[in-house]
Amino acid sequence: MKCRRCKAPAVIDIRRHNAAFCADCFLHHTREQVRRAVDEFEMIAPGERVLVAVSGGKDSLALWDLLAELGIPADGLYLGLGIGDYSDESGRHARAFADARGLHLIEVDLRERYGYDVPTAAAATRRAPCGACGLSKRHLFNQFALDGEYDVVATGHNLDDEAAVLLGNVLHWEVGYLGRQFPVLPASTGFARKVKPLVKLGEREMAAYCVLRGIDYQIEECPMAVGNRHLGLKETLNQLEDRSPGAKAAFLSGFWNRGHDAFASEADEERAELRACVECGAPTTAERCAFCALRAKAGAHEPVVARVELRGAS
Amino acid sequence: MKCRRCKAPAVIDIRRHNAAFCADCFLHHTREQVRRAVDEFEMIAPGERVLVAVSGGKDSLALWDLLAELGIPADGLYLGLGIGDYSDESGRHARAFADARGLHLIEVDLRERYGYDVPTAAAATRRAPCGACGLSKRHLFNQFALDGEYDVVATGHNLDDEAAVLLGNVLHWEVGYLGRQFPVLPASTGFARKVKPLVKLGEREMAAYCVLRGIDYQIEECPMAVGNRHLGLKETLNQLEDRSPGAKAAFLSGFWNRGHDAFASEADEERAELRACVECGAPTTAERCAFCALRAKAGAHEPVVARVELRGAS
Repeated sequence: MKCRRCKAPAVIDIRRHNAAFCADCFLHHTREQVRRAVDEFEMIAPGERVLVAVSGGKDSLALWDLLAELGIPADGLYLGLGIGDYSDESGRHARAFADARGLHLIEVDLRERYGYDVPTAAAATRRAPCGACGLSKRHLFNQFALDGEYDVVATGHNLDDEAAVLLGNVLHWEVGYLGRQFPVLPASTGFARKVKPLVKLGEREMAAYCVLRGIDYQIEECPMAVGNRHLGLKETLNQLEDRSPGAKAAFLSGFWNRGHDAFASEADEERAELRACVECGAPTTAERCAFCALRAKAGAHEPVVARVELRGAS
Repeated sequence: MKCRRCKAPAVIDIRRHNAAFCADCFLHHTREQVRRAVDEFEMIAPGERVLVAVSGGKDSLALWDLLAELGIPADGLYLGLGIGDYSDESGRHARAFADARGLHLIEVDLRERYGYDVPTAAAATRRAPCGACGLSKRHLFNQFALDGEYDVVATGHNLDDEAAVLLGNVLHWEVGYLGRQFPVLPASTGFARKVKPLVKLGEREMAAYCVLRGIDYQIEECPMAVGNRHLGLKETLNQLEDRSPGAKAAFLSGFWNRGHDAFASEADEERAELRACVECGAPTTAERCAFCALRAKAGAHEPVVARVELRGAS
């Protein structure tokens, strides 16, 4: 197996590209895929302030690294979710990465600052923990971006993540979610722009990138996510990919090119119904936003954190 | 396990309905599902002339039987596809069913009347045989309906068929196909109305219905379809259904209720581009329709069958 680019012995093959690469050319290929995604979807303009959502896993650390390699400076935001050893170790990986590179990592502990953590919230809502966790992350990454005057929040969602979310949205015809699922979500009142620069790269490629770049990351799956629906959908897609290499990428890019527009008006309609949360001012369709409702359910007694305080954090 | 309706011992359980039925109540349930589909989607009005697409398999024979049970008279159309013993036996089942019930079955042999058969066409096009077969069936069922002055063509597509087709269309974002995938497709210039009264019933239920009603049908899968993409997609959906009973029905009904409309304009646009085939007059976007092109490729030398001759067949 030889490198497609330089004919040296290859270290990784990518079936859907029908190609193999040596280490250097794989790193070049990976950067190119990110550069293309950023350009194609006009994710980040020169000079914009970028906030990377950092979990300590392979995707977010590789993303931070890749943006730096492409000359796009970014700060990181790490949320301490309070999931025991798993969170402790994830935090250590994020911190070590930032320290070694002299990058600015904002750290926020849910329990300290907001009076709850993910296990408590999950128990209180009696729902899958991933729901409470995703809600907290979406709310806080957006809030910190707005208050820290970042132009854009970059997340490490890769091709496999996006394809699994898309399959879930399609199986339930969640037309509002379909209208909002895209590699770039423009800023609107109360929302910073969201971008996913890794959408052209698979999970396996992200792991290989970290190994080849010497990035230490949290290898464990989150213990609270074991057996969740999202992982089941990834399995389903992997089977389709095995039968027909490229199926996942075609599913995603077909959606971006031909499917998404059909649902754009659904998302517009939902946006039109938004008003400010009576407690924290975040956009919501209810009186109190889902984040404030979750905090209350999870027993957080502290007053709502005001925007002015958040601003100081960044 | 007791029958949900009459508490007698049950003979079949249907997980997605969380219900079990005795033989009589299962037959009643099955008829009700068809009646509801016919009513909900306004498939067939009283007094309309119905043509059932009959293959000799469980779905089409059960459909013909169910329509009769619901007081909806229908003729059948059987196409001899020329797939060796498989076709011979399928034809015998269709004939025996019609004869035993005194129903009118129109029989048309592709080779005799159109100068080709499915294996020849598949070899000539070097594509999956299911493509040539589906194309031939769609064209001829429509043509015979128009020429025989039937109001509607009813096909035996069941819930599993429709869900697998939907998954395939979604994985490739075939937006034109998505715009046309619905339990009822209204008549338009050159097209008879198409309806699928079995969309609320699964494959397993159709087999059970035939067994309980004493309907002998072609049990074999078509030998030319072995390993095709459609069967792979059914497997994928069966795995999702195992993990989450009702997933298939929710996928389909969600599409009907929330997804389909988003693609309706795509189908309209495609319809606007249609003109008459120079050879047979059928609607097509090309000069010659796909059916006439297929016949020519498959070496059919006979002149195109005129409409007036087709009319005599019904």
